[in-house]
Amino acid sequence: MVRADSQHKSNLELVNECDTFPYPTANPQEYIQYISTYYHFVVADQTVGYVLPSVSEVFRGIPGFELNDDAGTLTLVSGENEEERSAIIAKTGGALRVTGHFKVLEKWRNELYPVYGKNRELLFKIERAMSPLFGVVTYGAHCICYTNGHDTEMMRLWIPRRAAKKTYGGMLDNTVAGGIAVGEDPFEALVRECDEEASLPQDIVRQSAKAAGTVSYFHIRDERAGGETRLLQPECQFVYDIELPPDVVPKPNDDEVQEFYNMTVEEVREALAKGEFKPNCAIVTLDFFIRKGILTVQNEPDLIEICSRLHRRLEFPTM
Amino acid sequence: MVRADSQHKSNLELVNECDTFPYPTANPQEYIQYISTYYHFVVADQTVGYVLPSVSEVFRGIPGFELNDDAGTLTLVSGENEEERSAIIAKTGGALRVTGHFKVLEKWRNELYPVYGKNRELLFKIERAMSPLFGVVTYGAHCICYTNGHDTEMMRLWIPRRAAKKTYGGMLDNTVAGGIAVGEDPFEALVRECDEEASLPQDIVRQSAKAAGTVSYFHIRDERAGGETRLLQPECQFVYDIELPPDVVPKPNDDEVQEFYNMTVEEVREALAKGEFKPNCAIVTLDFFIRKGILTVQNEPDLIEICSRLHRRLEFPTM
Repeated sequence: MVRADSQHKSNLELVNECDTFPYPTANPQEYIQYISTYYHFVVADQTVGYVLPSVSEVFRGIPGFELNDDAGTLTLVSGENEEERSAIIAKTGGALRVTGHFKVLEKWRNELYPVYGKNRELLFKIERAMSPLFGVVTYGAHCICYTNGHDTEMMRLWIPRRAAKKTYGGMLDNTVAGGIAVGEDPFEALVRECDEEASLPQDIVRQSAKAAGTVSYFHIRDERAGGETRLLQPECQFVYDIELPPDVVPKPNDDEVQEFYNMTVEEVREALAKGEFKPNCAIVTLDFFIRKGILTVQNEPDLIEICSRLHRRLEFPTM
Repeated sequence: MVRADSQHKSNLELVNECDTFPYPTANPQEYIQYISTYYHFVVADQTVGYVLPSVSEVFRGIPGFELNDDAGTLTLVSGENEEERSAIIAKTGGALRVTGHFKVLEKWRNELYPVYGKNRELLFKIERAMSPLFGVVTYGAHCICYTNGHDTEMMRLWIPRRAAKKTYGGMLDNTVAGGIAVGEDPFEALVRECDEEASLPQDIVRQSAKAAGTVSYFHIRDERAGGETRLLQPECQFVYDIELPPDVVPKPNDDEVQEFYNMTVEEVREALAKGEFKPNCAIVTLDFFIRKGILTVQNEPDLIEICSRLHRRLEFPTM
């Protein structure tokens, strides 16, 4: 049997692999049926994520949480304010890490992610590794560094290969990509990651990085992410481009990246089609190609669908 | 009473004025209730648009159309192929233009728009002025011409004011914008419009225009569009940028444009906030500002929501 990975993937198939959660518009009734298989994670009277029944079950009886099977809700009932809620989440997460209920908690990061409410208020902080258990929105900054931007034929992209020991080990990535922690500004997160992952000098990044909006999607975790499958990851990436001078060469600075390749647009397109990119980095690359006029309605029959899917409107409050 | 138009509008308010149709994700049940107030326009077993009940009522008894109140459908039952369907639509539209049932048909254009099915097959053609009656997806090409792209402070945008006699008369527009007719390539439509609306030489356009994806939204027509209100217009615009040399100056070439202004980014932002832009041109301008790093998470609190809303996934088949 031929593995799907070894076949040629269309750009829309790449999008489908990342933005996997179904859409309500095609068939609203079917969608309602589908999401009713998840519990709503309710905090301060707001749904901030969806939780698998098997995950919700673990929280039955844990103080501070209330499971309502009829309503289909897992509610954080304790905590009057952000600090108290964060404390309960942290305490429970720490304990579940010890009990070993969830494989995802084995990748504990000691990084706190923010979860926001409808009025952009910080509802609580949560350890990064815990966030897929509750299906809450997480944020990152992704940057593509390139040279010779004036000419698509001459353009080169700096593409790293992820370290083998990481999740999605050995796959291709965006030049710099990382999560945004509580209280961190997306641009400052980018500056930090540019140093940590690619040894790019701060002054070049501050001077040359251009913001280009967001890419958002609703991912269902599969085997490749490690840990439990079917956990939900609605994500929003702040996207940046940096046109580097030819003499500035990204170099690995931590253990996240094996090496950087200097690839032509054509080489990147081939690597995409071969499924060599980490799924969310693939679609950030598609967004770059669309904004740069490389993917157009002339060469991409699914352009309209892809443009929409790269900017999914998430049904939870965001930053 | 202060008119809303004279108040300062946030960028999200500008999006809300264009992408007016509600979203299913916030409250799927409420959404289902809402869309059930429209009839589905069904052609070849596919819903290709939503129709107001008051419009559907007119088609009751017209040969070739079947209204089913229980199912909430207006079905084109005649026509085995594209040509036959287009002929029925044309014949019926021509007759309704004479009967005077619909004000929107007074703006008959003699321009045919394509309506596609799930497999991107052309289902039928329809006179442009008729398309909002059936709420079918229409397509356009929008282009922003600018100078001094290397520096936001120095950048100038070429902004036309629409002729007074047009719909949205006197409002500001994108440098070049027009609909895409049946069989027309979006880029060729752009080249044509650049000549017709702005006297831009074909060779400059072909050499300098850069595709930058699509902007899509679901608009509910209001008084400003003329004709019946509440008609639906799901639209997809192919977006292009042209960085013009300083000595190339757009000039009106038909009766669509009064004059062109050479505006700074700050002047454009003020005009947007004052509500001076035609609604869909406002959001194409926001997309430009986001792609160019002018609107960022640092200065636009609604960035995530705006990015998603500018690329709405339409629930009908597209091109």
